[in-house]
Amino acid sequence: MESKKRDRRGFLKGSVALAGLAAGGVRLGKGQTQGTPAKKIDELIAYGDRSRFITSIRKPVAERHSPDEFGLTFHVLAPLQDSVGIITPSSLFYTATHRGAFVPDIDPREDRLMIHGMVDRPLVFTLEELKRLPYETRIHFVECLGNRARPNHKTVQETHGLTSCAEWTGVSLSLLLKEAGVQKAASWIVAEGAEEVKGASSIPLAKAMDDCLVCYAMNGEPIRPQQGFPLRLMVPGFEGIYQIKYLRRIKVVDRYYMTYDDYGHINPDPKVAALTHIIGPKSVITFPSGGQQLPGPGVYQITGLAWSGGGKVRKVEISTDGGQTWKDAEIRGEVHSKAHTRFGLNWKWDGQECTLMSRCTDELGQLQPMRSQLAQHFHEPPDYYKTHGVQGTDNMIQPWRVASDGSVHNALV
Amino acid sequence: MESKKRDRRGFLKGSVALAGLAAGGVRLGKGQTQGTPAKKIDELIAYGDRSRFITSIRKPVAERHSPDEFGLTFHVLAPLQDSVGIITPSSLFYTATHRGAFVPDIDPREDRLMIHGMVDRPLVFTLEELKRLPYETRIHFVECLGNRARPNHKTVQETHGLTSCAEWTGVSLSLLLKEAGVQKAASWIVAEGAEEVKGASSIPLAKAMDDCLVCYAMNGEPIRPQQGFPLRLMVPGFEGIYQIKYLRRIKVVDRYYMTYDDYGHINPDPKVAALTHIIGPKSVITFPSGGQQLPGPGVYQITGLAWSGGGKVRKVEISTDGGQTWKDAEIRGEVHSKAHTRFGLNWKWDGQECTLMSRCTDELGQLQPMRSQLAQHFHEPPDYYKTHGVQGTDNMIQPWRVASDGSVHNALV
Repeated sequence: MESKKRDRRGFLKGSVALAGLAAGGVRLGKGQTQGTPAKKIDELIAYGDRSRFITSIRKPVAERHSPDEFGLTFHVLAPLQDSVGIITPSSLFYTATHRGAFVPDIDPREDRLMIHGMVDRPLVFTLEELKRLPYETRIHFVECLGNRARPNHKTVQETHGLTSCAEWTGVSLSLLLKEAGVQKAASWIVAEGAEEVKGASSIPLAKAMDDCLVCYAMNGEPIRPQQGFPLRLMVPGFEGIYQIKYLRRIKVVDRYYMTYDDYGHINPDPKVAALTHIIGPKSVITFPSGGQQLPGPGVYQITGLAWSGGGKVRKVEISTDGGQTWKDAEIRGEVHSKAHTRFGLNWKWDGQECTLMSRCTDELGQLQPMRSQLAQHFHEPPDYYKTHGVQGTDNMIQPWRVASDGSVHNALV
Repeated sequence: MESKKRDRRGFLKGSVALAGLAAGGVRLGKGQTQGTPAKKIDELIAYGDRSRFITSIRKPVAERHSPDEFGLTFHVLAPLQDSVGIITPSSLFYTATHRGAFVPDIDPREDRLMIHGMVDRPLVFTLEELKRLPYETRIHFVECLGNRARPNHKTVQETHGLTSCAEWTGVSLSLLLKEAGVQKAASWIVAEGAEEVKGASSIPLAKAMDDCLVCYAMNGEPIRPQQGFPLRLMVPGFEGIYQIKYLRRIKVVDRYYMTYDDYGHINPDPKVAALTHIIGPKSVITFPSGGQQLPGPGVYQITGLAWSGGGKVRKVEISTDGGQTWKDAEIRGEVHSKAHTRFGLNWKWDGQECTLMSRCTDELGQLQPMRSQLAQHFHEPPDYYKTHGVQGTDNMIQPWRVASDGSVHNALV
């Protein structure tokens, strides 16, 4: 305890010098007491806005138009370089769809969810009826399987921006399935959304009966349209395409069904196609990260996010020497299962070029691999990996190179 | 476990009848597959919006204009009747200020925080320098002392809307004070914001060295202007007026200083004036609550929020018979110290008029009182309470009357 205190004091001594230590030299800032009547009073009351000085925004996946030339693909990256804590603001939550920018415009009073197929009692619910059922609230990440760092990506938004994390509220899918009465021969469900190009995924019944939620809220308000308003299926820890937006139908079946969403899963063995897309363990340093600039040598907070579809993050380690040595990071805040976890480490930069990395160990003991180790850590059969290139979860360690001028660069090669 | 399952199934049987059990009768809703090109693509990419069907908004405190006739008071209530989980969306977070609707328009690059007074080393920080210090992320509620239910209030937004809860990120105030070197004779701090009418509060040094945070972020993005952008002091569990917005100065002193913010604290004894405004224990049912309508007899989820400045919520109980008998509610989600805590209970309404109440017990063993017990539970000296009327934390139990037609009413008399 005492040594920790000393560390902090020692660390701060560095920053004090930076702070321009002089009580007489305070500038309280231009315009600090000026009002900004930019909006009508009624609007100021109804629904608050962020500061005009805050300009952090999402952006499309690099080198791909959103929507693309066919008007379908719409992949928008969250600005992780600006992230703090573990909640992604709903307005900045990543979006990835193959159904275009204009999402279904669903009147929640008209919305229905049907559960049918191999059940004793097919059910149809309105949204209001679902809200009369017991609900759960949990924090979970979502990540697109396409969240893969490439050497030409400049920022952490580009390398890792297809993941976000929110507080989700909804009804346990297992509760709904038990009420419908799943028949003995059933072994899968197919969940379908109300989109022009139907979003549907086959999910093993065991997972459906485990920790899935039929969600109607995120971050304290109804799910946003880009996240599936009014209903989204949460399949915690599985890749994003399983988290069916605009959920309208769940069919209980006795086999794996091929769907449009299988474009990324083509494999003759349904178990491989559907069961191998659990995310992580994964982590990335969000500061300092590519495109950021350190003003000079001194003390900084290395900070980042770690997550795993395997459960809770058990440990995060940081290397400041390109992976030769590792030091435990501090977990900064709460650790939730299958959720982003914030980590940090005090770091004194001596002004020399160096390479920063983070790696995550989850509660199953799985360790995030180096790029060179990625293939052997893959759940896919090696042959499949070799013939298809990078498929499945790409959870390799992300290196950031800090140049001697303080600029930070993607060090993937 | 098995009995719980049966309860849930039994409960759901009620809702199945409501759901119009017929797989053939599914209506997927008008317009479910129609696009809604209401915004430019660039805007859809940059920063997402909520659904046009979601119209939940804040509103001014009843019978008071915001801003008032002097252009100062601006008290805006959060729509708790629509709340889910424990995170209040930043756009719906309550706001209470005596400095008007138009908040300081602070350029974060120009912002400075000074720590001075009885310290060995006065310090001045830029925002960027503060972000180089170790940070913490925690979930805490904020509540205005003026959050008091009245018989004429119709909804839970009116009775309890001056409280909200967010994920806060910032630097421990104790870290900053230790670095400045607090002198032995110091016993208080005065924290001041950059407002036209200066917001300032005297805070006991013991609290300042305990769990206060100098926050620069809430809910994963920079603090909103209405919440104090760019810096807000979090004084967890204390009433809202201590959570100084637009924080620019902390002076370490050896006595309680009277400030503008004392308007609610006038008392000859500084310890009474400054130390008796810890919130709660408190709770309120958000559904069913005043102004809402139950469609008819059947099973519902009673749900609500509980919180206490005394620490974690230990227990929430619900009465459906006006306080004659109490049943433990379920905690639905995580319990954080000095944070909103979501509770719920399955409830079968038989169609008879009844009165719903909730009460919270915190980790200190403090029990939320009935209105008739409020005086004796007050921290203020009884004489003070008698002469000043309702001052200090008003944490009385809120009763909601469900009429036989399913309408819900404030039952405070």
